[in-house]
Amino acid sequence: MTDLRLSRTFQTAPAAVPRDNTAKYLDSGLAADGFQQPDWLVPDIEDGTAPDMKDDALENIVERLPEADFAGEVWPRVEWSYDDERVRERGREQIETLVREVGEHVDGVVVPKVGRCEDVARAADVVAEAEAAHGYPEGTVELSVIVETAAAASDLRQIAAFGEESSLHGLVFGPVDYTAEIGGREIDGQGPSYDSLLWNLSNEASANGLVAIGGPFDRLFGERAGVRYYNAEAYADQVTREARIGLDGSWSLHPKQTEQANRLHMPGEDELARDVRRIEEFDEAKSAGTGAVTVDGQMVDEATFKTFANTVDTARAVYRTAPEQAETVYSESLLDRALDLDTEW
Amino acid sequence: MTDLRLSRTFQTAPAAVPRDNTAKYLDSGLAADGFQQPDWLVPDIEDGTAPDMKDDALENIVERLPEADFAGEVWPRVEWSYDDERVRERGREQIETLVREVGEHVDGVVVPKVGRCEDVARAADVVAEAEAAHGYPEGTVELSVIVETAAAASDLRQIAAFGEESSLHGLVFGPVDYTAEIGGREIDGQGPSYDSLLWNLSNEASANGLVAIGGPFDRLFGERAGVRYYNAEAYADQVTREARIGLDGSWSLHPKQTEQANRLHMPGEDELARDVRRIEEFDEAKSAGTGAVTVDGQMVDEATFKTFANTVDTARAVYRTAPEQAETVYSESLLDRALDLDTEW
Amino acid sequence: MTDLRLSRTFQTAPAAVPRDNTAKYLDSGLAADGFQQPDWLVPDIEDGTAPDMKDDALENIVERLPEADFAGEVWPRVEWSYDDERVRERGREQIETLVREVGEHVDGVVVPKVGRCEDVARAADVVAEAEAAHGYPEGTVELSVIVETAAAASDLRQIAAFGEESSLHGLVFGPVDYTAEIGGREIDGQGPSYDSLLWNLSNEASANGLVAIGGPFDRLFGERAGVRYYNAEAYADQVTREARIGLDGSWSLHPKQTEQANRLHMPGEDELARDVRRIEEFDEAKSAGTGAVTVDGQMVDEATFKTFANTVDTARAVYRTAPEQAETVYSESLLDRALDLDTEW
Repeated sequence: MTDLRLSRTFQTAPAAVPRDNTAKYLDSGLAADGFQQPDWLVPDIEDGTAPDMKDDALENIVERLPEADFAGEVWPRVEWSYDDERVRERGREQIETLVREVGEHVDGVVVPKVGRCEDVARAADVVAEAEAAHGYPEGTVELSVIVETAAAASDLRQIAAFGEESSLHGLVFGPVDYTAEIGGREIDGQGPSYDSLLWNLSNEASANGLVAIGGPFDRLFGERAGVRYYNAEAYADQVTREARIGLDGSWSLHPKQTEQANRLHMPGEDELARDVRRIEEFDEAKSAGTGAVTVDGQMVDEATFKTFANTVDTARAVYRTAPEQAETVYSESLLDRALDLDTEW
Repeated sequence: MTDLRLSRTFQTAPAAVPRDNTAKYLDSGLAADGFQQPDWLVPDIEDGTAPDMKDDALENIVERLPEADFAGEVWPRVEWSYDDERVRERGREQIETLVREVGEHVDGVVVPKVGRCEDVARAADVVAEAEAAHGYPEGTVELSVIVETAAAASDLRQIAAFGEESSLHGLVFGPVDYTAEIGGREIDGQGPSYDSLLWNLSNEASANGLVAIGGPFDRLFGERAGVRYYNAEAYADQVTREARIGLDGSWSLHPKQTEQANRLHMPGEDELARDVRRIEEFDEAKSAGTGAVTVDGQMVDEATFKTFANTVDTARAVYRTAPEQAETVYSESLLDRALDLDTEW
Repeated sequence: MTDLRLSRTFQTAPAAVPRDNTAKYLDSGLAADGFQQPDWLVPDIEDGTAPDMKDDALENIVERLPEADFAGEVWPRVEWSYDDERVRERGREQIETLVREVGEHVDGVVVPKVGRCEDVARAADVVAEAEAAHGYPEGTVELSVIVETAAAASDLRQIAAFGEESSLHGLVFGPVDYTAEIGGREIDGQGPSYDSLLWNLSNEASANGLVAIGGPFDRLFGERAGVRYYNAEAYADQVTREARIGLDGSWSLHPKQTEQANRLHMPGEDELARDVRRIEEFDEAKSAGTGAVTVDGQMVDEATFKTFANTVDTARAVYRTAPEQAETVYSESLLDRALDLDTEW
């Protein structure tokens, strides 16, 4: 069974807020279940946490993670800035603390506002130094970066290539800072469209074995004629566009967004049924030894087979980390067939 | 007269199919006339031919080409894969056989699933070695590659630059494999849009003197309320988008598609009449020696002149290789004027 | 006060036309006021001027600039061509004359039809040599290039990076020549869309501290049922798209276009009021010493602050160079508050 890692949802949660329980959002993220359980929980020490609560944020993460029973991956977001040494120094200390205190409880760190490729390498070095200092093998704590500066967008091809030989694992789009950086504007209620950048992100991630994740959608709620409603349509439209162009996951700011993005980035019952059947037919034909193996009128080669296998492996990974989600979407018999298959070419 | 080569249509034909005449599609491609005559006929040994018929496919090509009276170019597609040495070995043997047996009857070979620039150079070396082994001057058999991996899309600029100094002649888009590679999905009946990639393809081809060709459209037929119909509108829309952004040609899977793409990628009567007249007026003004030469209210410089000349050269190339097509679209008198002009600046 | 330079409008004016006053358009550009005053006036010696009037064009510029009282920047466009040495030689002489005769009256020169990065460097050398020859410190006369060849579009990243260390100041898009270069076509009244290229232009300019300016819109007038009208909607739509994606300015061919683009590339009253208030609130909160500074429910960091400051700096720059424009759009009290603020972080 291929050990596919999921990154359908990248849910940020402020790691400290001015409430009685400063870890309120972190706690609820770690306790989420069903479709509200994100694949990545991102405890946020950066923009989501007030400057005077950064220490609380770090402390909350260090306290909560060892006790938590969370099935997804945990990726704290630290402070960083390609053009501000003081901010980078804080990020360095935050990474050092996280690796020292909870190195075995995090999958990686998310570093925002990186600049050119050298800056990404600098962030990777900080992680590697912390790993070495505290006895972790290199690569234990991975790195994902937020592409939200013109410099990082310009160096995307170099950054992704660096990813192939380093602990860099994911590329995440950050449209808010990015728009400010390039001087983009919202006019008549419409901002810039970043189709080219998202295609680049998807292509470069795929060319270098990284994952690519879309940016946040912050108009969480709408209001019409006095009624306030969750903006379900607009978010689903964004996630759908991201899934079409091959992004592995979407950013979530709210459990409802997590619900939607988890569903949109996993195969539906029909999609899974189709690809399970294709692999079964392929296996039968292969055993029958008929040479050319044709399924649904198409010859199956390694590339085609991989796309079928990818559907099945995704469903199985969902079952492994969030069984309720898989059991909700797939019938029991289909799930059994999917779990039984050999998805290696 | 500029010796412009046409590549309006890239028609693939399976080189062997399980029929009484295994060369059925190859034969009909070679015999096509009128608007169904493609500029490039691409006998397909790769995905269009079953694994157990690869030898028949190669044999059909070797037998048919020397006898055929085909006015367009012939570009067999061989097997290849940037990430599978065994497939590349088969491709190597197919190229060797093609050059040895029918080197003077093919214009080039089409190599699919190339990866980074090094892989394209490797394919070019295979062609060059076969040429050398069988006494052909370098460059006799050219190379076109299908851009259908994330690695090739990432290296597009490098690959195209390599094209300027090598036998690489064309860049062809392959959306099906490409979509699988980047994990793109069709959702609600709509797949990813590749506008950015096509613009890149067109720009890099132009910057390096290569030709750029769009990808196949495989929903050949539709059905509505029980009536099955050829999907003429949807294919024409795709070809129109490709022509607008400057692609030199479109992929065809069927003689009807070839008919449409041949027409859409050639100037219409009005377009040709306009540019013939502009060159005539320019020539007159130049002879009159009035210094500034203004046509249609615009000053004519070398760049402007080239766009007029390109229209005329395309029409003349169509007349040269497919006279019926030219005679169908252009009036006799216009064609005479076009053939008479000097299109050199 | 940050010394922000404006480039909302890039208005070309033929520097010599076959009229009694050959400097008619140059004169009216230099005398324009109110919203018709462009940020950049571009006296055009290239395509806008007939071949036999190039000398008059240069002479008009040399005569008029020293006497003119023009508040914006002046950027003559000279002749150039990456693939024609004779044209480059004329450009070289035009630059030499401009620097020698009116070096202190021009902000820079606009060089069209550049090719790969080496060609841009060659143009920069020509400017530097002229500066050196006539005693101007390096960088006195800056350089902007028109991106209108496939080679320049392919090298955009390298060209922009060169800009960071050179006198290169602006990147301007030239769609007409560019479309001819890549073989783009207008079909059914619709030409190619260059969203990807414009995003690249905006991103690379931002990543390297350059300005980015869109291409001309030449369907100045429309006609419907016998009535001829200024094509206000279509031009405003183009400028709006350019402003959204972060271009700093738009090309203007007519005083009416200048009016529209000047307005669309400056903050409106509401936009300015909002960002003035945000900075005021930020300053108050900072003085109160509450640590985290939250404005409009968002924490303010350096990046956020910069976007507020940019709005205010733009309005102040408009007031500085075109006070009538600022006074038309902003109320007196708002303008006073904007002028009073400290926009440094």
